[in-house]
Amino acid sequence: MNKKRGQQSIVFASPPVITSTANIVGPMEGDGILTEFYDRILKDNLDDNSSWEKCESSMMEWAIKTAIAKECSAIDDIDYVLAGDLLNQLMGTHFAVRNVGRPFLGMYGACSTLALSMIIGATLIDGGFASKLAAAVSSHHDTAERQYRFPTELGVQRPMISQWTVTGSGAMVISANGDGPRITAATAGKIVDIGLKDPNAMGPAMAPAAADTLWRHFNDTGRQPNYYDMIYTGDLGSVGKALVINLFKEKGIDLSTVYEDCGCMIFRKEQDAHAGASGCASSAVVFTGYIYQMLMRQKLRKILLVGTGSLHSTTSYQQKESIPCIAHAVAVEM
Amino acid sequence: MNKKRGQQSIVFASPPVITSTANIVGPMEGDGILTEFYDRILKDNLDDNSSWEKCESSMMEWAIKTAIAKECSAIDDIDYVLAGDLLNQLMGTHFAVRNVGRPFLGMYGACSTLALSMIIGATLIDGGFASKLAAAVSSHHDTAERQYRFPTELGVQRPMISQWTVTGSGAMVISANGDGPRITAATAGKIVDIGLKDPNAMGPAMAPAAADTLWRHFNDTGRQPNYYDMIYTGDLGSVGKALVINLFKEKGIDLSTVYEDCGCMIFRKEQDAHAGASGCASSAVVFTGYIYQMLMRQKLRKILLVGTGSLHSTTSYQQKESIPCIAHAVAVEM
Repeated sequence: MNKKRGQQSIVFASPPVITSTANIVGPMEGDGILTEFYDRILKDNLDDNSSWEKCESSMMEWAIKTAIAKECSAIDDIDYVLAGDLLNQLMGTHFAVRNVGRPFLGMYGACSTLALSMIIGATLIDGGFASKLAAAVSSHHDTAERQYRFPTELGVQRPMISQWTVTGSGAMVISANGDGPRITAATAGKIVDIGLKDPNAMGPAMAPAAADTLWRHFNDTGRQPNYYDMIYTGDLGSVGKALVINLFKEKGIDLSTVYEDCGCMIFRKEQDAHAGASGCASSAVVFTGYIYQMLMRQKLRKILLVGTGSLHSTTSYQQKESIPCIAHAVAVEM
Repeated sequence: MNKKRGQQSIVFASPPVITSTANIVGPMEGDGILTEFYDRILKDNLDDNSSWEKCESSMMEWAIKTAIAKECSAIDDIDYVLAGDLLNQLMGTHFAVRNVGRPFLGMYGACSTLALSMIIGATLIDGGFASKLAAAVSSHHDTAERQYRFPTELGVQRPMISQWTVTGSGAMVISANGDGPRITAATAGKIVDIGLKDPNAMGPAMAPAAADTLWRHFNDTGRQPNYYDMIYTGDLGSVGKALVINLFKEKGIDLSTVYEDCGCMIFRKEQDAHAGASGCASSAVVFTGYIYQMLMRQKLRKILLVGTGSLHSTTSYQQKESIPCIAHAVAVEM
């Protein structure tokens, strides 16, 4: 048993290896802080596709196939593809994975989907059900804006607390054997809903879910925050990040020295992304790029990635429901 | 290793047990063929909720909690809830699971979501990552119609090839130990898209995916169709079912004596559901009701459930894309 009774966390007996990663981003992301850590930067948000949604799909297909190629594996060596995105019925994912041709397990955790896929992927590998699989997510600023809020052509003003959905995709190959950082532990989150209803303010809605999963992770594993070189949440942005730090301060724990949010690492201040980046691709392009490279170069040795997801829909908002949120944590160590 | 290299199928070393099931349906389903196999039949499609979506959520919450209660477990004994539905951003699921309070893994396989959740659930149990978990799905005729097609108030005429989305939810508890039928093997499907584009004709679109997964399952496991007392696809309806039988006939295999589709088992002919039932709840209410009861009474000993999912969205249809489909197979034996 890899999970103790009454606990939320798994410690893997034979920690699966992340043997390769690949990512691709839009032009605004490419012009941001982490330029050197992206494999490909699109010249525009369509990339010669006939719709933004098809562009999103093509990004994910490219990321999955590139991650597999980097690892010198054949596509047929991939036992499963685990993937998801923010679009209704995972349109970004299904049309990407259709062109990969491997058994597919569809995941939905909103912007926590990469962490969710890594957790389930790691259990499939550690449990002996797969020797190699791909995990991937995507998001696209224009597909997300028109689905969740307003078509970007309208030019609707965004409040300062809002975040900018990342155009991009990140993919990885997780293997039973090989070189690279290993997924050593994971904590799947519960749905936390503190009653917030503003779909522009995702950071504050998700922060309590992130804090809850972090707290469970520390308690279950006996690890202190400083066990990790860095802890990264997915897309809380500057407002949500400050709230997580405050929630831990109330418990007498200073998280600030080892904690950053991927949503605060992507855009330069002058790019006017307001409270930061968001979307499935926020944690995905940072993890598969900067964080993975830092692990491979041994600049980081132990990190905790906490994917954060807001599980509302436009219908639930219209029906005046509050915003249920979730966070999934994955420990990755060299 | 529970999966042979190059194969799509898993054979479980310690087959997980389905220790309980629960289901709930709308009035039309309750008035159908399988009345005696439902735990609860709603008096109307709202059940005192303020929206159909909230009704769908409350059905899933009821099904999950009832399956757990039937098994005499406490909710805290459940390590994970694996669930999904057809609504944008899984609205049915998230607001149900919010009220269950256990770690949540979000699944999306359209109408194949129950089989997908059973496969991942069984790997979590057999791999030693959980000792007990809940799997659940829901669908609702009115939420699906207004999201995918037309609001039901419009009274738009439906073509004869269309199917009727089942209002209902089915849930089960899967455990490492206990009494009940066991999940002995599973085959996760690939996305199959033969280029059909009519969103009214889901059965023909999904039939090739079902046939592909069945074919892989037989080849991987060495089992013949008649290894099973019955093979059940999820929601191909009468048209899709005939196509699966024909696809196997072309290979020289007569599937017709051991094969039925859950979508053909729910409504009486006079209920005018056209080509049959569909939706996540189609396979779910049949499996958690009739099939599970037949297994418990040993009237059936070995069955194969093949969840079938159409992975399109309204956006992909509007963008003139064809319909990608998937099928996941789960062998359940007493």
